[in-house]
Amino acid sequence: MRCEVVAVGTELLLGQIVDTNSSWIGEQLAANGIDSYHQTKVGDNLERIVGAIRSALQRSDAVIVCGGLGPTHDDITREAIADVMGVPLELDEHVANAIRAMFAARSRPMPENNLRQALVPRGAVVIEQRRGTAPGLICPVDAKVIYAAPGVPHELFEMMERAILPDLRNRAGETHVIVSRVLRTWGDSESGLAARLADRIERLEIQGTPTLAFLASGIEGIKIRLTAKAVDLAAAHALLAEEEVALRAELGDQVFGVDDQTMESVVLAMLRSKGLTLGVAESVTGGLVGARLTAVPDASDVFRGSIVSYANDVKFALFDMRPGPVVSADAARAMATGARRVLGAAVGLSLTGVAGPSEQDGRAPGTLFVGTDIGGEVEVNELMLTPHRDQMRQIAVISALNLLRLRLEL
Amino acid sequence: MRCEVVAVGTELLLGQIVDTNSSWIGEQLAANGIDSYHQTKVGDNLERIVGAIRSALQRSDAVIVCGGLGPTHDDITREAIADVMGVPLELDEHVANAIRAMFAARSRPMPENNLRQALVPRGAVVIEQRRGTAPGLICPVDAKVIYAAPGVPHELFEMMERAILPDLRNRAGETHVIVSRVLRTWGDSESGLAARLADRIERLEIQGTPTLAFLASGIEGIKIRLTAKAVDLAAAHALLAEEEVALRAELGDQVFGVDDQTMESVVLAMLRSKGLTLGVAESVTGGLVGARLTAVPDASDVFRGSIVSYANDVKFALFDMRPGPVVSADAARAMATGARRVLGAAVGLSLTGVAGPSEQDGRAPGTLFVGTDIGGEVEVNELMLTPHRDQMRQIAVISALNLLRLRLEL
Repeated sequence: MRCEVVAVGTELLLGQIVDTNSSWIGEQLAANGIDSYHQTKVGDNLERIVGAIRSALQRSDAVIVCGGLGPTHDDITREAIADVMGVPLELDEHVANAIRAMFAARSRPMPENNLRQALVPRGAVVIEQRRGTAPGLICPVDAKVIYAAPGVPHELFEMMERAILPDLRNRAGETHVIVSRVLRTWGDSESGLAARLADRIERLEIQGTPTLAFLASGIEGIKIRLTAKAVDLAAAHALLAEEEVALRAELGDQVFGVDDQTMESVVLAMLRSKGLTLGVAESVTGGLVGARLTAVPDASDVFRGSIVSYANDVKFALFDMRPGPVVSADAARAMATGARRVLGAAVGLSLTGVAGPSEQDGRAPGTLFVGTDIGGEVEVNELMLTPHRDQMRQIAVISALNLLRLRLEL
Repeated sequence: MRCEVVAVGTELLLGQIVDTNSSWIGEQLAANGIDSYHQTKVGDNLERIVGAIRSALQRSDAVIVCGGLGPTHDDITREAIADVMGVPLELDEHVANAIRAMFAARSRPMPENNLRQALVPRGAVVIEQRRGTAPGLICPVDAKVIYAAPGVPHELFEMMERAILPDLRNRAGETHVIVSRVLRTWGDSESGLAARLADRIERLEIQGTPTLAFLASGIEGIKIRLTAKAVDLAAAHALLAEEEVALRAELGDQVFGVDDQTMESVVLAMLRSKGLTLGVAESVTGGLVGARLTAVPDASDVFRGSIVSYANDVKFALFDMRPGPVVSADAARAMATGARRVLGAAVGLSLTGVAGPSEQDGRAPGTLFVGTDIGGEVEVNELMLTPHRDQMRQIAVISALNLLRLRLEL
């Protein structure tokens, strides 16, 4: 089974948007045992979209066309697919009503062009849209198939997982199962992990499955992806479980989570299991720690709040600090304790540092002090992170939460 | 003059690396007035690379092949180009000596496979490599041309700017320049904007330049990109300026920024110009407003801080609120005023709402109350946003900042 990707959008060719969708689709196809040998980007031009789909369909059994399904005049993927199929577009009343209902629910008038999204090539099956307005399409062409999916990433991801990948696997008659597991780590660099796991990697290469890949993912940690191929789910999971045990033995408490477990979800779960609540005082991260924690849906039973004390005198006033350098161990200590007290929490976590571009209090960009106060027992750690502002703030969040995690594990 | 990009590498198809090179090349081609209608990714397979280059060369006058020039057995771009040209590969002694000298300078033994990089299709011109080992190639095919460039981004960028773009412009006899400008808007949907601007879009389509495209970008707003083609920079900028005036006349205060101006940078600049400071009280967004504001490097002279009052009793205690429903106009009012007072700011901004998945205080997911307190004058707005947790929080940030912007504009 071969499947190609055609990404549609002039903005992709002009480099205004990087086409991350195709990369993500490629990853999913590989993980599902479907070969993918070509990916194409083409602009919002009917003739060229038709040409790209036709070429792809000649080479492969399936084509995923991504983007160009919106309501505006330059969204012409539907027209292109109908052309390739040699059929007319027809208004799907069910889809049209869903779009009308969506606007009505938001009490907004619906511009008429939105109904373009309800046009469906005759013979195509609609993939219900659950997050936006444009539905996806499954369009048979003789024994082959064209899928159309929205270019908005979260809409695409949801539709791929729910409808397109299952349909592809079904058509492929895929009997092997391929299962992945991600171990998330913090504490070592990607090359450091590769060096520590060199023997293990060599052994897996001889063995053939599972495979192992590293992926540095910023605030998400460094991921180790294990992918096992086996005759059934039980066998694949057994391979993954065995390899996970071996990796954990080597990496110890650097492994903080599995699959979708983020550092913040793990820390919240640890606090919850211990019956502890958390208050945060953040300066350099400006609210990022709170934002990440509250991205976890059930954070509210643990997370009390965060004081973003960006101005120095706000720190002094709210945390009863003596005026002095705010990028310091003393400040981190006062902020952690202050957060615990002001927010009425059992545990206080503080971050103060320099994101750059300039130094502050004689400290270089990249400097971070993290304070943790667990029931009055305070610890402070000093770290030196990257001096690049955005990355520094991201890395600061996961580093601080990791320090709290390590203390909670004791 | 048409030029395509063929990016070579199995890791691109598998999604292990996102192909940012093609995006960057696309941007450069556009900026140099060279049309680019297709970009292709293909794996490390001779037959398929040859096929991709042949297809590209049929459609276009020039092809930039990016990647596959390294020393290892899967670097076969040279072989593929020689095949397309119908000529043999020959060792270029000058290049071979340069590679030998590079290893000698680093006192490292040279693995013999490095000399693969000195193989040049007969009739091709070498582009000297100044940063790594693999040179680039200019390979004439009748009146058309294939360029080969390394996949390592900084090597590619340097070679494009020094050799490939000048050669392309020269072949194109290109005298036109292409310039873009982005207007950022908030207040209308993408389809709503399209409907409002329908006459304008039709007129531009007849006129041919500038072109206009919409791009919904979440927390970055909905972007309207104008792209003008003209004989020189001055003429292109004049076209953009004229169109910007027309769009602003139609859209009014929905246009909040141009190019890289974000909603938060615009709000910070307005506050700064009025000598005002800002304090935030956020609940549903958990710190996102503060995080976005402090992503702007010079935020500290305006932004005092944010109180992330996630737990209800934290709201009651810190903002002197009477206990009651916290997703309400009264709560938004108390929080805006409380933020101003607690953080010692001239302006207070508050957000309280329901991100979901469950309802709260009898309010549905998507509900948002925004309070703005400018020197004691308080206003509260109620909005209904998308019920999806992540997007709701993102949209809440830009919506709240936009409400503050509109008040500051009065």
